[in-house]
Amino acid sequence: MIYLDHAATTPPTREALEAAWPYLTQVTGNPASAHEVGRAAKAGLDLARETVAEVLGCRPGEVVFTSGGTEADNLAVTGISTATPRGRHVVTTAVEHPAVLETALALRQRGFRVDVVGVDATGTVDLDALAALVTDRTTLVSVMTANNEVGTLQPLAEVSALCRAHGVPLHTDAVQAAGHLSLDVDALGVDAVSVSGHKLGGLRGAGFLHVRGAVALDPLLHGGGQERGRRSGTVDVASAVATAVALRRADEARVHEAPRLRALRDDLVAGVLARVPSAVLTGHPVRRLPGHASFCFAGVGGETVLAELERFGVVCSSGSACAADSDDASAVLLAMGIDADLARTAVRFTLGATTTADDVAEVLRVLPAAVGAATVG
Amino acid sequence: MIYLDHAATTPPTREALEAAWPYLTQVTGNPASAHEVGRAAKAGLDLARETVAEVLGCRPGEVVFTSGGTEADNLAVTGISTATPRGRHVVTTAVEHPAVLETALALRQRGFRVDVVGVDATGTVDLDALAALVTDRTTLVSVMTANNEVGTLQPLAEVSALCRAHGVPLHTDAVQAAGHLSLDVDALGVDAVSVSGHKLGGLRGAGFLHVRGAVALDPLLHGGGQERGRRSGTVDVASAVATAVALRRADEARVHEAPRLRALRDDLVAGVLARVPSAVLTGHPVRRLPGHASFCFAGVGGETVLAELERFGVVCSSGSACAADSDDASAVLLAMGIDADLARTAVRFTLGATTTADDVAEVLRVLPAAVGAATVG
Repeated sequence: MIYLDHAATTPPTREALEAAWPYLTQVTGNPASAHEVGRAAKAGLDLARETVAEVLGCRPGEVVFTSGGTEADNLAVTGISTATPRGRHVVTTAVEHPAVLETALALRQRGFRVDVVGVDATGTVDLDALAALVTDRTTLVSVMTANNEVGTLQPLAEVSALCRAHGVPLHTDAVQAAGHLSLDVDALGVDAVSVSGHKLGGLRGAGFLHVRGAVALDPLLHGGGQERGRRSGTVDVASAVATAVALRRADEARVHEAPRLRALRDDLVAGVLARVPSAVLTGHPVRRLPGHASFCFAGVGGETVLAELERFGVVCSSGSACAADSDDASAVLLAMGIDADLARTAVRFTLGATTTADDVAEVLRVLPAAVGAATVG
Repeated sequence: MIYLDHAATTPPTREALEAAWPYLTQVTGNPASAHEVGRAAKAGLDLARETVAEVLGCRPGEVVFTSGGTEADNLAVTGISTATPRGRHVVTTAVEHPAVLETALALRQRGFRVDVVGVDATGTVDLDALAALVTDRTTLVSVMTANNEVGTLQPLAEVSALCRAHGVPLHTDAVQAAGHLSLDVDALGVDAVSVSGHKLGGLRGAGFLHVRGAVALDPLLHGGGQERGRRSGTVDVASAVATAVALRRADEARVHEAPRLRALRDDLVAGVLARVPSAVLTGHPVRRLPGHASFCFAGVGGETVLAELERFGVVCSSGSACAADSDDASAVLLAMGIDADLARTAVRFTLGATTTADDVAEVLRVLPAAVGAATVG
């Protein structure tokens, strides 16, 4: 079986598992406890926090561990907005993950105006439209680092310059970018970053939100006041450790892993376009995640290409795993101007640490037959 | 080292770890993915959900996996209240965990009236006061099953009868009770129950909320729509499995474990009261959790008894781990009418699966010296 759905989740690395192991089995105290059992757990948590801070180039106190990317996104969008509402105006994009987009839209019930900026045919945010919307009274701008469905990298530097000019905090959902791009928060020019552990070799159920110290944050979860009152609930030390170790490893490996994945991805894209005449690459042709290749196949029936590929031993997805059970056309593809019928034929290959050139060759070998079998009429 | 802080967290059982292991290392797919890798993860999650449902006597679809007890409490209180606001009126008690109490109080910002019912000297909720407050327009009543700091069991049957008479949903925070008392939701007469995994032999960062199918629930976390839209975010399958296995085991073991802990606890309470003249048992003398013994020691300095006990190799706490860093007197003890100076001397011993008669004997041997060393003047 060839697994090309690393954007949905990628297996935990051995190093992350080994780092988590003592905290699953021996150092199992409550890190909030004042006694030695608690302090041992807290020491692991502190180390994890410092490791994350090193990768992000931030202070450890700016890292809030969460139950994953979704919680981090919800906490950023809602927590920053309600803590400093200013003009009660949030701006985000049409291609955000629902964890950002739905959370932003839900703020309308609390009296916020929420503007959703469109994208061009490559999935890149319309910077002119964004510039026309953001004012000195804007509460928050949230623009993802890279899109999960089509891999497009957003022009964060330009978005950041715009936000800085208006003194508006900028949040970025880096769930897909983490491990593939630098997360240095100063270089990114962002005030808040969401990351998921299991997308980069950590464990499911873990992630973190970075929030710059100067940005106030209301908690989403009330309770015992953990994480300096920004996120109550006993922290999952083992998973936080796994996230930190996996992040550091992925960040170190980027130097050689990103070019390796990019080369494999380029071979895959070129091969698909050459072998399957109906194939259309979705997302930006160049400014996209290294291991990300996404297509539509005109004339095939819905998700049947996926089923055919799985019969051939290739596991991939139509887009986000969250929407795997839905027959609706992807909102991301629709926002890019792709018509609904074509959008329903989406196939996403996302490469990861275990992916080899042989895997790509095998996909290219079986894909024409899979598409042929799935073609309507 | 004798660990008597099982209410803060209890080590994962070997059985729970072994059940989680395949989902940490091999079956690591995203349970929302439609392909075989996702389906294998989803099968584990389904089994965990069915196991929880069996213990609670509910339908699997009524179980929402969360990142822990705190999130479950937040989801219940906020999610039920905003989904069906009725008269925008929430009633809870002065001895709830902050995950319930602070969450309820935060609803005031959304236009809810929030009434906090007092307790008597044993920590038992004032049923007459509760009855005077609850009306047919009340949105939600939340009363904990058992208190974390003093172990007192609340009269849930009476609370349930009152709520049923008015058609008001009843939520109970069973984080401390889980594993010690039956969680059969029909027998409890509740509409929603919060449980934490790591308090009963599962892993940190996991728990669940049971919500009766007839009760509408707004999500707290927006996003991919997992857990039937009630809790977005990729579910931590391994931790959900650990929670389910630990819950089932604890529920089966209750028959012999509860009397065993109760006997040890009774020996501990009798011994402390006999050996330390300044000791006062806090909480209900009889209607309390089996393994829970909590005291105040008149005349000792703040948390020094804990420090002295730790020097003697006995690890316990003042109350909740969440408040371990605080010098404030416990709000629970104050609500019970204990004055602030005495409340600051609180020591809580919570027994668990690993606790033996020798442990209790050792505590009783060293406690007089520890209290003596901590006594002011």
